[in-house]
Amino acid sequence: MENKKEIIAGIIIIGNEILSGRTQDTNTSTLSIWLNTLGIKVQEARVIPDDEKKIIETVNKFRNLFNYVFTTGGIGPTHDDITASSISKAFDLEYGPHKEAMTILEKYYKPGEFNEGRQKMAWMPTTAKLILNPTSGAPGFNVENVFCLPGVPSILKSMLGGMQNSLIGGNPILSKTINLRTVESEIAKSLSKVQDNNKDVDIGSYPFFRAGKLGVAIVLRSSDQSKIDKCDIEIIKFIKEKKIEIIENI
Amino acid sequence: MENKKEIIAGIIIIGNEILSGRTQDTNTSTLSIWLNTLGIKVQEARVIPDDEKKIIETVNKFRNLFNYVFTTGGIGPTHDDITASSISKAFDLEYGPHKEAMTILEKYYKPGEFNEGRQKMAWMPTTAKLILNPTSGAPGFNVENVFCLPGVPSILKSMLGGMQNSLIGGNPILSKTINLRTVESEIAKSLSKVQDNNKDVDIGSYPFFRAGKLGVAIVLRSSDQSKIDKCDIEIIKFIKEKKIEIIENI
Repeated sequence: MENKKEIIAGIIIIGNEILSGRTQDTNTSTLSIWLNTLGIKVQEARVIPDDEKKIIETVNKFRNLFNYVFTTGGIGPTHDDITASSISKAFDLEYGPHKEAMTILEKYYKPGEFNEGRQKMAWMPTTAKLILNPTSGAPGFNVENVFCLPGVPSILKSMLGGMQNSLIGGNPILSKTINLRTVESEIAKSLSKVQDNNKDVDIGSYPFFRAGKLGVAIVLRSSDQSKIDKCDIEIIKFIKEKKIEIIENI
Repeated sequence: MENKKEIIAGIIIIGNEILSGRTQDTNTSTLSIWLNTLGIKVQEARVIPDDEKKIIETVNKFRNLFNYVFTTGGIGPTHDDITASSISKAFDLEYGPHKEAMTILEKYYKPGEFNEGRQKMAWMPTTAKLILNPTSGAPGFNVENVFCLPGVPSILKSMLGGMQNSLIGGNPILSKTINLRTVESEIAKSLSKVQDNNKDVDIGSYPFFRAGKLGVAIVLRSSDQSKIDKCDIEIIKFIKEKKIEIIENI
């Protein structure tokens, strides 16, 4: 298999409502799952408040650390939506009405309805590339390797497809899950040996409680199917020796 | 009202399964909501992989930035559970079997069942304070201002009560929510003025879609009820002028 460089990403969730616990973030998992399919691995996610200094600092840190950075939240029309102005400052770019975004929003609203509040949604780095929003008009935007998306999960989901051509992925990250009727401590030592023999495969072990019974999910992740298969064989071998029930192997 | 210093916290979610999107994190919101009731405000949350260097770096950064740090995940018996050893390194403390934890786990398991895998759950900084686990035996632990909890949400929840006496809170953070039948752009300008007049109150604006209709939730947060009330009056004033329907004011 051709060895492409690993492509990594960071996610920045912007919003006091996530940190107060009022809103449950789901955008991290939505983005992670979608990026996996493109062969892009999320290395870190941060939830930060609607604070200009913090946004600038985090974006500038992440855009140097990762191939791609995705922000969610803070691009609406109200005073607490400061992502677009903060990104402009992070990149030292002019913040103002984006011509193409203005045109899109003018068409989206009825005559007379494109008021000052709504116009704010077209304010961003004036040279940004737009990320089209098929659900509610107001576009996201992209500057260099940073992609800024809205916080509302359903709108964010509708915009993923439009970004796909702007991203260069790696080898898709493949996974295999082995669900066992056991507890972690029964398999810990043997599993640790398999991990030592297979350093390129990310082996995770996750206890679960389902239909009144305890179990453990072993998850193997790699971009190389043959490496996953080798691991799988080694795990099944010790599982059979220990006479542990295999619930699923998928 | 007595002016206590603001007490702030950071949350570190440790686990590849969150970053791959396989598991949806809910511990951030559980911890945030609980900390709010103690008057402790979460300033930042980070999701990081099961990576020793990254855990050490993040813990050492956070314990200097915040009054309290909470980690979740990575304290089970398998090879990918490296939080306890990483925390020992972060604090330069001996990592080994914790006497009190060993005693607890010996009692928890039937004779002969306290195997090597299970004993690993008693390995941690040997001088750590334990956080008792009423659900499944294996305790969490606390070193200075860092509290290490398991990743399984139901177990984590059962352990919160046991930490309460170790935390010194601030004034509880109070909140008020005004749900309106409107869209954000209709109120953006007026709300921005209210925020300018009331810099001490955190005013958030969150669009929602419920029962087929659009609305906006305005959330006021402060530790001072009189400041929230003042804000509320100013908001209700412009809402009435604009003839916007108030759905709830709670």
